[in-house]
Amino acid sequence: MKVVIDAFGGDFAPAAPIEGAALAQKELGVSIMLTGNEEIIRNYIKEHNVEFSDLEIVHTDDVISMHDEPTTLLKTHKESSMAVAFRKLAEGEADAFVSAGSTGAIVVGGTLIVKRIKGIKRPALASMIPSPNSPYMLMDMGANAECRPEMLQQFAVMANSYLKRVEGISNPKIALLNIGSEDSKGGELQQEAYKLMAKAPINFVGNIESREMPKGVVDAVITDGFTGNIALKLIEGTATTFFKMVKGVLYKNIINILAALVLKKDLYSLKSMMDSSEVGGALLLGVKQPVIKAHGNSDAKAIKNAIRQAKYFYDGKVIDSISQGLEAIEE
Amino acid sequence: MKVVIDAFGGDFAPAAPIEGAALAQKELGVSIMLTGNEEIIRNYIKEHNVEFSDLEIVHTDDVISMHDEPTTLLKTHKESSMAVAFRKLAEGEADAFVSAGSTGAIVVGGTLIVKRIKGIKRPALASMIPSPNSPYMLMDMGANAECRPEMLQQFAVMANSYLKRVEGISNPKIALLNIGSEDSKGGELQQEAYKLMAKAPINFVGNIESREMPKGVVDAVITDGFTGNIALKLIEGTATTFFKMVKGVLYKNIINILAALVLKKDLYSLKSMMDSSEVGGALLLGVKQPVIKAHGNSDAKAIKNAIRQAKYFYDGKVIDSISQGLEAIEE
Repeated sequence: MKVVIDAFGGDFAPAAPIEGAALAQKELGVSIMLTGNEEIIRNYIKEHNVEFSDLEIVHTDDVISMHDEPTTLLKTHKESSMAVAFRKLAEGEADAFVSAGSTGAIVVGGTLIVKRIKGIKRPALASMIPSPNSPYMLMDMGANAECRPEMLQQFAVMANSYLKRVEGISNPKIALLNIGSEDSKGGELQQEAYKLMAKAPINFVGNIESREMPKGVVDAVITDGFTGNIALKLIEGTATTFFKMVKGVLYKNIINILAALVLKKDLYSLKSMMDSSEVGGALLLGVKQPVIKAHGNSDAKAIKNAIRQAKYFYDGKVIDSISQGLEAIEE
Repeated sequence: MKVVIDAFGGDFAPAAPIEGAALAQKELGVSIMLTGNEEIIRNYIKEHNVEFSDLEIVHTDDVISMHDEPTTLLKTHKESSMAVAFRKLAEGEADAFVSAGSTGAIVVGGTLIVKRIKGIKRPALASMIPSPNSPYMLMDMGANAECRPEMLQQFAVMANSYLKRVEGISNPKIALLNIGSEDSKGGELQQEAYKLMAKAPINFVGNIESREMPKGVVDAVITDGFTGNIALKLIEGTATTFFKMVKGVLYKNIINILAALVLKKDLYSLKSMMDSSEVGGALLLGVKQPVIKAHGNSDAKAIKNAIRQAKYFYDGKVIDSISQGLEAIEE
């Protein structure tokens, strides 16, 4: 199995992608293809003694940045490391794709270069969110600011496939994010999506209110990309703010500092638990091959985790399962 | 100034509303009107030696519960303690209204009994959310699951009036909740609302991403009722979950328990800071008189705080200010 990695995507490129790819190869035995400036990559590998058992580099000079319009991936930046990686995936020269680059550009490349699975209206971004129980999937995280009910139904089917095949959950509990538990709650989108999700070949457990989400009581929370993006960043923001406040208490005075010495390690382990980069990258679900978007600030370990996720995605034949799920809706 | 209080709204009725009203009268010198079963109220006052300098009770037997359809306030439950309180307010026999009862019924009663301020399309629910800086207003919290751009513009004008007149903020920073900072972000609702808010006679600071919200960097966050309700409950849910995890650390082993003894008080003070009931009730803005919805689980202190909020709302002539703000939009 070969994973193509955009060596110039993310805040710590090319160091993190190169080191992460080497770690993944050692741990998982995957073949690696890196896209980007070959000289810079080779020099980095040499200078830092990075070991690869086999490595393919596809040279290109250009890079698409976080500030570029996502659609420039198809024109001005069609020779960027990300665009080249997408084409290698689409042409079958690699089996899965990983980049820590611009989310918008990854959605564009996935949708228009790799292309949608037959029957999928719109691909969506999904991520596993940490919780005190087990992580749960949030989908769509922002690929589609405006959604139609049928899209939410498809998101649910895709979530179901991934959770079964990659997370190994036999009958994932899938819920619709809403402002009340009754099926009459929410706007037209939620009311219609509720009906469609109830008809889909999944374990639909009804509406979930956002208050319950962080507890991790369901396996997937389905919503439109606007609400999902708001929710994702609000969880991060609230946890970060709360942790800062806890930290303020720990350093408040000398007595607290002494007591904090004892608790510090455990409290910091909470922080890393709430840290989204720990649970791997985001998935672009609905396209023909596995596309993983690693967090922009990914270090080598986070990139390695994203590559592992790509491997499980591929090994689990998630895309076949999604196609079967779509057929079951149609019937 | 007279405040009418629904003595049978909320989880701890009638104890909390009665005790809270007495506390408020003592502290603020307001006149109190209670609605509900007079015998029960009189008995409670007698048995618990609650002191009122002056008290008016409007007798009624019926109560609208959290499980009743909100619109039954106008028909089946038109003699409920809440409906009677709304009519007293609308008829000018009281100057402000407080209830810890059903939010949906309060929106119905405010809109259809007290009625909208001239020019207001839809009243909205607003609340002050705690943050490490100062509290900020979130609006709409759920009165309108689906909104049009002009409604968001009006919400901004109403938030501005309240923050100036009640919170004493001279030039409140008002932001639109969105999934990015550029004006092109979000769906059609956000893009159009952005333009209208930029034209309104307020200090519009542009989009705010949800990650920034909990820091309290702006004075008001404007959004549709669906997103606002999701955000409100997600902040509560995330803070609660995070606090439980911190608690888990404190009780993990005997050494942690000892260290925790020192920190406990300070850590618990964080919890109460994140506790929404501390910052008072929710406001139904856009109706002709002050309507305050206290948290369902309000104790006497929370009811007293809601009455104080009602007094400041009335004293600050917020409704006149909203009317002026609306006129300034029209011009």
